[in-house]
Amino acid sequence: MKKEKIRIVLDTNIFINPDSHTFFGNSPYEALNNFLLQLEDKIQLQCYMPPSIYEELIKFIDMRKVSKQFVLVTKKPPSKYDLPIPAIFLYEFIEEIRTRINKGMRVAEKHSRKGLKGMDEEELIKNLRNEYRIALREGIIDSKEDFDLILLAKELDAHLATTDTGLIKWAQKLGISCISAGELKQFLE
Amino acid sequence: MKKEKIRIVLDTNIFINPDSHTFFGNSPYEALNNFLLQLEDKIQLQCYMPPSIYEELIKFIDMRKVSKQFVLVTKKPPSKYDLPIPAIFLYEFIEEIRTRINKGMRVAEKHSRKGLKGMDEEELIKNLRNEYRIALREGIIDSKEDFDLILLAKELDAHLATTDTGLIKWAQKLGISCISAGELKQFLE
Repeated sequence: MKKEKIRIVLDTNIFINPDSHTFFGNSPYEALNNFLLQLEDKIQLQCYMPPSIYEELIKFIDMRKVSKQFVLVTKKPPSKYDLPIPAIFLYEFIEEIRTRINKGMRVAEKHSRKGLKGMDEEELIKNLRNEYRIALREGIIDSKEDFDLILLAKELDAHLATTDTGLIKWAQKLGISCISAGELKQFLE
Repeated sequence: MKKEKIRIVLDTNIFINPDSHTFFGNSPYEALNNFLLQLEDKIQLQCYMPPSIYEELIKFIDMRKVSKQFVLVTKKPPSKYDLPIPAIFLYEFIEEIRTRINKGMRVAEKHSRKGLKGMDEEELIKNLRNEYRIALREGIIDSKEDFDLILLAKELDAHLATTDTGLIKWAQKLGISCISAGELKQFLE
């Protein structure tokens, strides 16, 4: 009986995130390189990465050193003009954004009031940016790169290998199996 | 030859918005009442309103006065668990939200810095709220009620009668015909 190929869509954080280094190596380059070496003889595994995510990866890793093996990973964008998303997904997204926008407003008010009481400008703006980012960005799909990962995994009926909890939350709504760096390593054994 | 029925999804702003009053009446109640009276013998027109939008309407109009005629308007929610949305729509939405979030950040920074320079608290917060609302809310789908209108019009292949430019922009991406209060009046003539 011929086993079906297992498809995996790779997020950069699997190689970049310090928590993931324990699984594949101590630096982004080492992690990616070791991953590719282990992938070489796993003919039942087919790995993919959207080009937009690849562009993020090359900011961290000098790809000239690993380009030869990277051919094992197919750079494929999702068919974003063809694929449908259930309307309920967008409802939940709109609701989430609405809640986040309100949170962001409260963060902005808090820091404007703090300003009135007087404090170091640099510290005030730094705190504001940090709290605002958490309120508006963390745990949501906040870029088209993130959505590329979700959509490609959906299109290919692939596992999505990522450490991003926001991404996992939204991918799971579409029935996508998400795997951690540790689980990805198990696929390679 | 039997003509096909024309379907119209109604937004509340058609009756509530002061700009629309010139077409149907001088108050929300009068506007809605006149509209319903004119609708009565137009058998080729079928009007719809999502229940969530009806809930908004009854905040402005005492429906006990018009309840009898309102039976002409079908209160129907969209089939949000069945309907698909093209993925590209969500891409464009995510991009728009990202731009808005960055704008909101700049509004928050500006007002925190203004606070440092000292100004009336009430005025500072009022200005902040106003600018933040424009940056984050205007021109986007910012509630599930808005999306109910778009989705119902899509489902029924109906015209969407609304004065909300943000709603029109996003409805048009899905191929929905949007009509103004003036155009709606023409349908009744």
